[in-house]
Amino acid sequence: MEAQDLGAQLHAELLARGKMIASAESITGGGLGDLLTAAPGASETYLGGVVSYATAVKQQLLGVTDETVEKEGVVSAACAREMAVGIRDLLKADFGVSTTGVAGPTEQEGKPVGLVYVGVAGPRGVRTVELKLDGERAEIRDQACIEAVRTVMETVVDPDQG
Amino acid sequence: MEAQDLGAQLHAELLARGKMIASAESITGGGLGDLLTAAPGASETYLGGVVSYATAVKQQLLGVTDETVEKEGVVSAACAREMAVGIRDLLKADFGVSTTGVAGPTEQEGKPVGLVYVGVAGPRGVRTVELKLDGERAEIRDQACIEAVRTVMETVVDPDQG
Repeated sequence: MEAQDLGAQLHAELLARGKMIASAESITGGGLGDLLTAAPGASETYLGGVVSYATAVKQQLLGVTDETVEKEGVVSAACAREMAVGIRDLLKADFGVSTTGVAGPTEQEGKPVGLVYVGVAGPRGVRTVELKLDGERAEIRDQACIEAVRTVMETVVDPDQG
Repeated sequence: MEAQDLGAQLHAELLARGKMIASAESITGGGLGDLLTAAPGASETYLGGVVSYATAVKQQLLGVTDETVEKEGVVSAACAREMAVGIRDLLKADFGVSTTGVAGPTEQEGKPVGLVYVGVAGPRGVRTVELKLDGERAEIRDQACIEAVRTVMETVVDPDQG
């Protein structure tokens, strides 16, 4: 499924349930928000988000902890979890979705290019997914957006999660 | 010039001056941050930003005033100005850039599709640009990103502004 179709499908699933989403992005740099607002009517399901590119912004606005930054690094499941919970709380959304990872071309925190974590926080808790993506920087970022939408959609439509 | 080249050029101009930028997006939904982080090394000049899609987010995080929302609307030069100043202050950036407008397909606040305001806040003050863009929703959003980068670049390279 194409990225835009996937975004439109998530919008429809959220709309059908009267739920709102918010995004906290690092590796995707705004691409996830761009995808979530591509279709008309996006404001019915998307509140907005934070592009927390700098570590300080992750901490200041999303409440990523010093402990996570120092012990796990910003490319970690712990950071993705805190980002997703943080944006959900900050914007009072039903769902928060986050992305953090290494887009390349060089490794970061000793972690390889293509390592990406997606976090999804919802009414019943938070989960993270670890991805190992192939390709150039742009492909990795695009794929991270698609996987983030896919992960949040699984949560939204899951009767035990949404 | 292609969007990506323009983003790379802005990154180079900021890097040469040791300046950091932050973004506050409405109509572009994250597309501007995506553009500003497309090139490797973006973290050297881009701190992050807020996608303030909902009006409440513009007010909560960026300090857009009730007066602006009620009297001018969110598609206004006043709103673009407050968003740019707000994100510059929030993230302690050298430059803040904002976008607000009507992507369509329908008008908003009685304002026509394609009406877009870009705000740029810098060390010497803030300015706004009004744009009337043609095209479909996606084209208007893409063009708004390009014009935002162009406007902030003019400010960065202007010896009286930067």
